[in-house]
Amino acid sequence: MNIPVSQQYAIGVDIGGTNTVFGIVDHRGSILYRGAMSSRNHDTIEPYIDELYDLIIPSIESIGGIEYIRGIGIGAPNGNYYTGTIEYAPNLKWKGVVPMAELITKKFQLPCALTNDANAAAVGEMMYGAAKGMKDFIMITLGTGVGSGIVANGQLIYGHDGFAGELGHTIIIPDGRLHKGTGAKGSVEVYCSATGVKLTALELLEKNPKTNSLLTKYNKEEIDSKIVYECAVAGDKLANEVYAYTGKILGMALANFIMFSSPEAIILFGGLCKAGDLLLQPTRQHMEANLLPIFQNKVKLLFSELKEDDAAVLGASALVWELK
Amino acid sequence: MNIPVSQQYAIGVDIGGTNTVFGIVDHRGSILYRGAMSSRNHDTIEPYIDELYDLIIPSIESIGGIEYIRGIGIGAPNGNYYTGTIEYAPNLKWKGVVPMAELITKKFQLPCALTNDANAAAVGEMMYGAAKGMKDFIMITLGTGVGSGIVANGQLIYGHDGFAGELGHTIIIPDGRLHKGTGAKGSVEVYCSATGVKLTALELLEKNPKTNSLLTKYNKEEIDSKIVYECAVAGDKLANEVYAYTGKILGMALANFIMFSSPEAIILFGGLCKAGDLLLQPTRQHMEANLLPIFQNKVKLLFSELKEDDAAVLGASALVWELK
Repeated sequence: MNIPVSQQYAIGVDIGGTNTVFGIVDHRGSILYRGAMSSRNHDTIEPYIDELYDLIIPSIESIGGIEYIRGIGIGAPNGNYYTGTIEYAPNLKWKGVVPMAELITKKFQLPCALTNDANAAAVGEMMYGAAKGMKDFIMITLGTGVGSGIVANGQLIYGHDGFAGELGHTIIIPDGRLHKGTGAKGSVEVYCSATGVKLTALELLEKNPKTNSLLTKYNKEEIDSKIVYECAVAGDKLANEVYAYTGKILGMALANFIMFSSPEAIILFGGLCKAGDLLLQPTRQHMEANLLPIFQNKVKLLFSELKEDDAAVLGASALVWELK
Repeated sequence: MNIPVSQQYAIGVDIGGTNTVFGIVDHRGSILYRGAMSSRNHDTIEPYIDELYDLIIPSIESIGGIEYIRGIGIGAPNGNYYTGTIEYAPNLKWKGVVPMAELITKKFQLPCALTNDANAAAVGEMMYGAAKGMKDFIMITLGTGVGSGIVANGQLIYGHDGFAGELGHTIIIPDGRLHKGTGAKGSVEVYCSATGVKLTALELLEKNPKTNSLLTKYNKEEIDSKIVYECAVAGDKLANEVYAYTGKILGMALANFIMFSSPEAIILFGGLCKAGDLLLQPTRQHMEANLLPIFQNKVKLLFSELKEDDAAVLGASALVWELK
């Protein structure tokens, strides 16, 4: 390619359970064009890629044509960096092993790098966000689920098979709460995700039948992490306890992660971060309390510096600049 | 240095709480000269290094002189790879931060690399043992304590500050058994070390006052992991339960470690490995049961292939070949 890097662009695609968002991104992390489509319109993968192609092509033309695009980066649940496949993703329509990178390359005639969404977020954070310049950090995404991306020695840890960094599925409370999606008991995700916050709220309401918590005004089905947050901010005691408990479990888990890879920082990202200090304060307290002294008061606990709407696309696009 | 690598030698030094062992090792991992001294003869570090020097020099002369030595590798508790220091090692006589690598280099006029003993063991295993050719594995040392060395992308993970890989101190049972050395409750080490085996045996004896276990023949003070092993091999039910429990906890912990770095293998090393299948079988069972399906039946669980007496020196010497 004879076009200098400074004039090249990367396409970032984030495939979520509901929506696929994409953008054309320059080398400094500015998103020039954005778009979105449903991830659920097509039962098979080929027509999904056809729709994606038709949606992106006009933007590619606008920036000067496909020769200005260095490649396509994709973040997807259960995305495998080594094979470029999406494998048995429970929230996607396409079952089994989908050779996504290969199909994308065939359709677009561009190189493609694929990894899971949390790994993509970590690369984005390292290139454009709170982890700029760091060689050792852990990215934790706190959304519907809990994902993670681990960077050590300046490299993402993919592991032997490409699936490293599933910290949300590590067990923090043996024989603890059942995770209906995985069947595991007591995994980090079943406590520290949006779903976990809801479950904790329902548990506390059940344990305190005489409470006058604001949460009692809602049906059980209605209660979600957003409502718990609003009640907590309004000063509701039980809702605040929900965050204290979530932070306790998260802090314990982070301490374990730190004793694994001894990162410079842990970076939190995703919907639950809106809770700010409500979550951060108990998390930090229990993180420090569970660390060996040699690790205490060393590790930064930070929120992502990327705008939530942009982060997924930026992270996915950042994979392109790492392509060999 | 004009001497070809094939004719060079490395000195490996393993500093334990009681003894220091050392050897001169060739590039293929053969130990030509060995020696040992007490780690406890000197309250300050300089005379300790003087004694070590006087003991090693004759062997150095025997292989042709110091110009054939490429460097000195040291494994030591709380050894920090980045700084070459031993920091606040609870089992050593020298308190605070000891600039070991610098002092060794000054005395021997040779480059020196230092890391903790479990990291050194991992490098040794990668170079000469069960992990030969692997790029992603975790070494777990099961001795008086539980140590670990993590290799990902073909590199040891040292972390931001050089202290990564303290998996023995991760919490596996929140609010579990007290670790008297660290004050932590429920860490892996307090269950899966030789001390842990003893504590589990004492707990089971206390819970079963009417047992006719062979272990009741011993005083509580006498019981150690060796006696528990001998009773288990003799068919004693309670002693076998001790290993079943130890393996359960270890298996749960290994599952968490796997979901972190997705290694090709976990390699077990140290005194507890003598228990063989008594430990391996329950460990494997509970490891698999706690893994997400994408990780199941993939990760090899192996014993070290290095002779226990040689491993520490080999591992320490192996650091030398990695010196830049």
